Amino acid sequence: MITIKDSVHDHIEVDGVAAALLDTPEVQRLRHIKQLGTVQYVYPSANHTRFEHSLGVYHLASRALDHLGVEGINAERVRAAALLHDVGHGPFSHNVEALTHRHTGKYHDDVDELLAEGTVGDVLREYDLDPARVAELVRGEGKYGQVVSGELDVDRMDYLVRDAHHTGVPYGTIDHERLVRELTFVDGELVLAEGNVQTAESLLVARALMNPTVYQHPVARISKAMLRRAAEHLLADTDCTAGRLRRMDDHDLLVALRNIGDTAEFARRLDARDLYKRGVWAELSDVPDSVLDAPHDEIRDVEERVAASVGVEPEHVVVDVPAKPSMRESTSRVVVNGEIRQLGRQSPLVNALRTAQMNQWRLGVYAPADVADSVGRAAADELGLDIDGALVNDVRAGQATTLDQFD
Amino acid sequence: MITIKDSVHDHIEVDGVAAALLDTPEVQRLRHIKQLGTVQYVYPSANHTRFEHSLGVYHLASRALDHLGVEGINAERVRAAALLHDVGHGPFSHNVEALTHRHTGKYHDDVDELLAEGTVGDVLREYDLDPARVAELVRGEGKYGQVVSGELDVDRMDYLVRDAHHTGVPYGTIDHERLVRELTFVDGELVLAEGNVQTAESLLVARALMNPTVYQHPVARISKAMLRRAAEHLLADTDCTAGRLRRMDDHDLLVALRNIGDTAEFARRLDARDLYKRGVWAELSDVPDSVLDAPHDEIRDVEERVAASVGVEPEHVVVDVPAKPSMRESTSRVVVNGEIRQLGRQSPLVNALRTAQMNQWRLGVYAPADVADSVGRAAADELGLDIDGALVNDVRAGQATTLDQFD
Amino acid sequence: MITIKDSVHDHIEVDGVAAALLDTPEVQRLRHIKQLGTVQYVYPSANHTRFEHSLGVYHLASRALDHLGVEGINAERVRAAALLHDVGHGPFSHNVEALTHRHTGKYHDDVDELLAEGTVGDVLREYDLDPARVAELVRGEGKYGQVVSGELDVDRMDYLVRDAHHTGVPYGTIDHERLVRELTFVDGELVLAEGNVQTAESLLVARALMNPTVYQHPVARISKAMLRRAAEHLLADTDCTAGRLRRMDDHDLLVALRNIGDTAEFARRLDARDLYKRGVWAELSDVPDSVLDAPHDEIRDVEERVAASVGVEPEHVVVDVPAKPSMRESTSRVVVNGEIRQLGRQSPLVNALRTAQMNQWRLGVYAPADVADSVGRAAADELGLDIDGALVNDVRAGQATTLDQFD
Amino acid sequence: MITIKDSVHDHIEVDGVAAALLDTPEVQRLRHIKQLGTVQYVYPSANHTRFEHSLGVYHLASRALDHLGVEGINAERVRAAALLHDVGHGPFSHNVEALTHRHTGKYHDDVDELLAEGTVGDVLREYDLDPARVAELVRGEGKYGQVVSGELDVDRMDYLVRDAHHTGVPYGTIDHERLVRELTFVDGELVLAEGNVQTAESLLVARALMNPTVYQHPVARISKAMLRRAAEHLLADTDCTAGRLRRMDDHDLLVALRNIGDTAEFARRLDARDLYKRGVWAELSDVPDSVLDAPHDEIRDVEERVAASVGVEPEHVVVDVPAKPSMRESTSRVVVNGEIRQLGRQSPLVNALRTAQMNQWRLGVYAPADVADSVGRAAADELGLDIDGALVNDVRAGQATTLDQFD
Repeated sequence: MITIKDSVHDHIEVDGVAAALLDTPEVQRLRHIKQLGTVQYVYPSANHTRFEHSLGVYHLASRALDHLGVEGINAERVRAAALLHDVGHGPFSHNVEALTHRHTGKYHDDVDELLAEGTVGDVLREYDLDPARVAELVRGEGKYGQVVSGELDVDRMDYLVRDAHHTGVPYGTIDHERLVRELTFVDGELVLAEGNVQTAESLLVARALMNPTVYQHPVARISKAMLRRAAEHLLADTDCTAGRLRRMDDHDLLVALRNIGDTAEFARRLDARDLYKRGVWAELSDVPDSVLDAPHDEIRDVEERVAASVGVEPEHVVVDVPAKPSMRESTSRVVVNGEIRQLGRQSPLVNALRTAQMNQWRLGVYAPADVADSVGRAAADELGLDIDGALVNDVRAGQATTLDQFD
Repeated sequence: MITIKDSVHDHIEVDGVAAALLDTPEVQRLRHIKQLGTVQYVYPSANHTRFEHSLGVYHLASRALDHLGVEGINAERVRAAALLHDVGHGPFSHNVEALTHRHTGKYHDDVDELLAEGTVGDVLREYDLDPARVAELVRGEGKYGQVVSGELDVDRMDYLVRDAHHTGVPYGTIDHERLVRELTFVDGELVLAEGNVQTAESLLVARALMNPTVYQHPVARISKAMLRRAAEHLLADTDCTAGRLRRMDDHDLLVALRNIGDTAEFARRLDARDLYKRGVWAELSDVPDSVLDAPHDEIRDVEERVAASVGVEPEHVVVDVPAKPSMRESTSRVVVNGEIRQLGRQSPLVNALRTAQMNQWRLGVYAPADVADSVGRAAADELGLDIDGALVNDVRAGQATTLDQFD
Repeated sequence: MITIKDSVHDHIEVDGVAAALLDTPEVQRLRHIKQLGTVQYVYPSANHTRFEHSLGVYHLASRALDHLGVEGINAERVRAAALLHDVGHGPFSHNVEALTHRHTGKYHDDVDELLAEGTVGDVLREYDLDPARVAELVRGEGKYGQVVSGELDVDRMDYLVRDAHHTGVPYGTIDHERLVRELTFVDGELVLAEGNVQTAESLLVARALMNPTVYQHPVARISKAMLRRAAEHLLADTDCTAGRLRRMDDHDLLVALRNIGDTAEFARRLDARDLYKRGVWAELSDVPDSVLDAPHDEIRDVEERVAASVGVEPEHVVVDVPAKPSMRESTSRVVVNGEIRQLGRQSPLVNALRTAQMNQWRLGVYAPADVADSVGRAAADELGLDIDGALVNDVRAGQATTLDQFD
Repeated sequence: MITIKDSVHDHIEVDGVAAALLDTPEVQRLRHIKQLGTVQYVYPSANHTRFEHSLGVYHLASRALDHLGVEGINAERVRAAALLHDVGHGPFSHNVEALTHRHTGKYHDDVDELLAEGTVGDVLREYDLDPARVAELVRGEGKYGQVVSGELDVDRMDYLVRDAHHTGVPYGTIDHERLVRELTFVDGELVLAEGNVQTAESLLVARALMNPTVYQHPVARISKAMLRRAAEHLLADTDCTAGRLRRMDDHDLLVALRNIGDTAEFARRLDARDLYKRGVWAELSDVPDSVLDAPHDEIRDVEERVAASVGVEPEHVVVDVPAKPSMRESTSRVVVNGEIRQLGRQSPLVNALRTAQMNQWRLGVYAPADVADSVGRAAADELGLDIDGALVNDVRAGQATTLDQFD
């Protein structure tokens, strides 16, 4: 048994297949992928990695399994899946995934390959675990998959607490010990035991507050959009394939961007934190459905037309249209007065948080500071935004006082 | 200047009138009044006092004043009010206040007397502060009173964080440093600056989650109701007046209860944590309006009739009808896109939390374990509860696993 | 199984005999005895109790037993002893123990009685545990007694971390998780496994730094000496026996002092934090051996002679001669290169800390502020102190700036 | 004014020249240099960077200046120096500095250049600060330089607390708020005010315990030695100069090592955490003076002779001879009874800690696991180690249980 000291869970005991997996290059690679990607441009302490997060998820999964009374090969499979659940992440975590996904057509299905091949596959088979079944758990399939990936999964419990610890934003400070203790299976469904409506709500609320404050912070979104744009150049202008890109770690990607002519300016801006500014920051109601549903190529065309109309380089216009928010935990189930209820039906908070997320959604258009205003106006025009409602540019003054290290 | 080490805010600097007030018997008395009264029967570490809380409120008020740029006598008055805001509390904080209030007809108006008289009055006048104007601030009146008592007051900021620290329940862990920094006056109103919708929501959510988990935990409510009932005997059966009772501290009250025949059994039960159990735990919709609005004497009559019908001592029946929940913070104001908005209008969370509080409201009937069931049924009958909806007695089994040290 | 939320260890699971013991009046009484007695006059947040500490010791004992692989009746006995180890404490913890000990001739031997009698005895026997054998463990006897009371016991681990959490003084923040994991039995001796010289040193250092800063802080010592003197009056002037005194809790003692003429002034002073000041604060080298070894009665005579010579009430002179410091952990054993070594031989720190403790030792003479100087001089004379070395009175100015809320 | 959220100090306000310096490439580069280099191979959460540390040092310097009453240009210079004190660091912090120092002949003198040139120099001059005078403060020169770099500097205060927060090892948890408040100038010397012997000791002790547990942990030393060896190849075998190396960040260095034939194997081993093992771990008394004083080239010759004699590649033998420990804080000065005393004279701990550091010193010889034993024996012979005392190889078994993630 290996004991590892963690800043969040203190001592983590790693045993069995997990101890063997720990030493594989695939898992060790996660040391070099930041958990929160470009969030560190807002919260400088947010430098924690997918490696320590994976250990944390493994740890909480082990604790949950103990409380659930799951043992033997079922437990061992869950523990392996918990430790491995992020091995498919590309550099800067989610930041370039949409990109590689588009180019490779693979996202979660990739997990099957990753777990079956290389050292990870060897180790799993050595411990008599079928990689395909572990991959199912990573995808949240089956009874035990709910522990790893689902409405009440330990992945979320770890990242909320860990992100709070490392950003300094306390909203993620949930009672993970209680959550892990109160999980129970009823008719094959993972639910929270009686008396835990607040426990379930607190998980929901934590994510709802962390989202705009940390994960979707404007500065994090801007730098992420810049990074993604630079990575597009990498794929278009060099012999780097999407497959190669998604196996890079943060070091590889940053250095590649620095060394290639077309992306060096993006790299310089990211290195110097000389970021684009917002020209548009539009609410959901201001955005036509056609824009919300537009494929990637169309958005790229918009960017080019805007650049041409304003007279700037195409790289100087970034249109950032996030997906509509979903709230997965709304189907979390809790036991109330002896029967299983969907949290969304039991708690008025769930709908409110869904509405709040819709309210927080923003389409952004970013450009270098000196042209942000004109780019913003041209883009609003081009995208058919309700120009009165869409906050063009001037929101910045107001928020600058409250956004950590913004501008 | 005095520097005091605090478990929550680390070093607290006390200066000027506050340093002089600190040494008055009225403020020192708060060392002997627990912040959370009977909550320690649920969370054993919750032994913090009104004294340290008052220091914390003083500290946050000082920080807020610095950020607000308030100086001179206005600031000194707020600091005095912050330190003094709880001197009127009776033993076990809010637990016996309804009682003394009923008997004396005084509640907040009492603050005027307390601040004008005794050593506190002497000190205030010595520092050229008018006790009446400090009392106004304690009551939340005037522009600066909002800092001490209002929708965005520092009282709440301190107690949420402090109660979280001492109970171990993390829900109260708000970002008080940010709150204090983002306060600003607009047209004489205390509001949160631009970009702080989530900051305001987090304050609301923290209280909404702490409420059922800590402040209104069934065990805390049962022991509080027992304590209050015992204190009623003290007033009825001894020469102890309501005025004397409200100036007692926790030690005085507990020892008085131990030493008086009629209350010794309550004292024994509290000392041994041999608490009554729930016979009824009814939702708002199950309770007739007549019960909700019934004066105290009527509820006492119900208790006596129930006791008679079941054949137990009158002390063995406690009917606990809390007031309907209010949510003061819903009128918190935040600046959004340059204009002041009520949080309740901006945030869908506010209404949801109000609904959640209504859902959490419970009427309780408590009795010794062996008669809790029969007392519960008789009381449900007597109170005209919707007996199918009202959870009589059997809720206990389910919750026992999840309520800390509940049996 | 009962799960209890603790501010230090989060969730504590209580099971078996411990769950039954928890509900005894003897254990519940510990809710009403502050862990640090009068230390709260220095650190206002230090209001934690022997009850939560006992739970913490039980928790760490359980964890240690798991790691040590101890099971069955041996483990159950240790868990009972851990939870019960403080039931013999009088009000304000150690503060009046010297007094009751002197009057009853009992100290630790008392544990046998306490565990054999009353509800505790009944519960132990119900679980087939011999109270006498549990008492042995409380006294630290036998192989497993070392876990409860010894150089590396879990009692110390809990109180250092807990006192740090509640005072805000970080020096007690040891790595208790590591300590508990690294305990091992070698030839029946409890030792720390290989690689833990620093772990052992850290435990020693934590106590050495907490001692002068918290446990022996001058203000805590002065108020403790005042409390003890008042309690002496209680025994001398009322029908309260030492046996009754030691079974009081904090409430009983404080209220008793308030209500008795001879001690009411002490009670008033403690309630208002109107404490005596130091007239003498003498180092070990300034104090004759005859004073160090003087029995209690002789010191009382000195106090009376000093009072007479200065012309003050006898209650206005308190001479406080602490025992010489011991450092129990110096015989902690650690495994170094495969052999067991005494920490005192392995670590140069041990001797240094012993010397530091000798340096920190102080004899104090306390009196009301206005006579502290004259009382100090008279006492120094009477005690034959090296008057040049002994700091008479004037130390206060210098330290006042740095002692939290002193003076 | 910019407000930045930090995981350790919560909100950090950056103003004046510091706010302007923050946006320079030289300071932003520190985002990409880990504070603890290879320590993350032991403590996976230790991914914090020089950037957040520099902000923390700036913050504590500002607080200290407030308490010291230093204002105006003197304060502004100190704040600039605090923020800039680490801009000279190469990749992986101290890990490759000895190397670049040897090759460039520059170490601290470099600071003058760095601060005078580039954007940093421009900003300093724009704020009317002489770069040369700021550089003096970075070097700890002059009255105010003591705040930035000296026995009681804020650099150490920040890194101890920060490293504790991110590794999870609590030993660094000092009372930095108190330290900063108790600093005072006496006759131009920075000292701790009266009553702070324990405060000073705690700083010393924290470092003494963090040293072997974190900074000099065997795994951190082995990986650091491997990294340094690989970097030597980079300089010897490519056109990378020492000047270029020291301006790299962590990404640059890791990717460079991966891409160059001679160092790719080191890079693979570091990436996969497939580290060398200890063949020798010798105490100070076992090592001849000639080895302690040997220049770098001689040690390289030893490595080659050992490799040849065992029949392995030269890269497979690493001899790691640390400098003899120093303990700078021993000359910390504290005020005791009104006079300034060196802590080393006042506290018996200082000498003990110096001895402890000598005891902890180890010469290491590292090699791939399968040849660690034979390499160790050959190296012990070649170095003339007292072979009985020097622990060759077999220490590993014992420590493996207690070193976090060590194998």
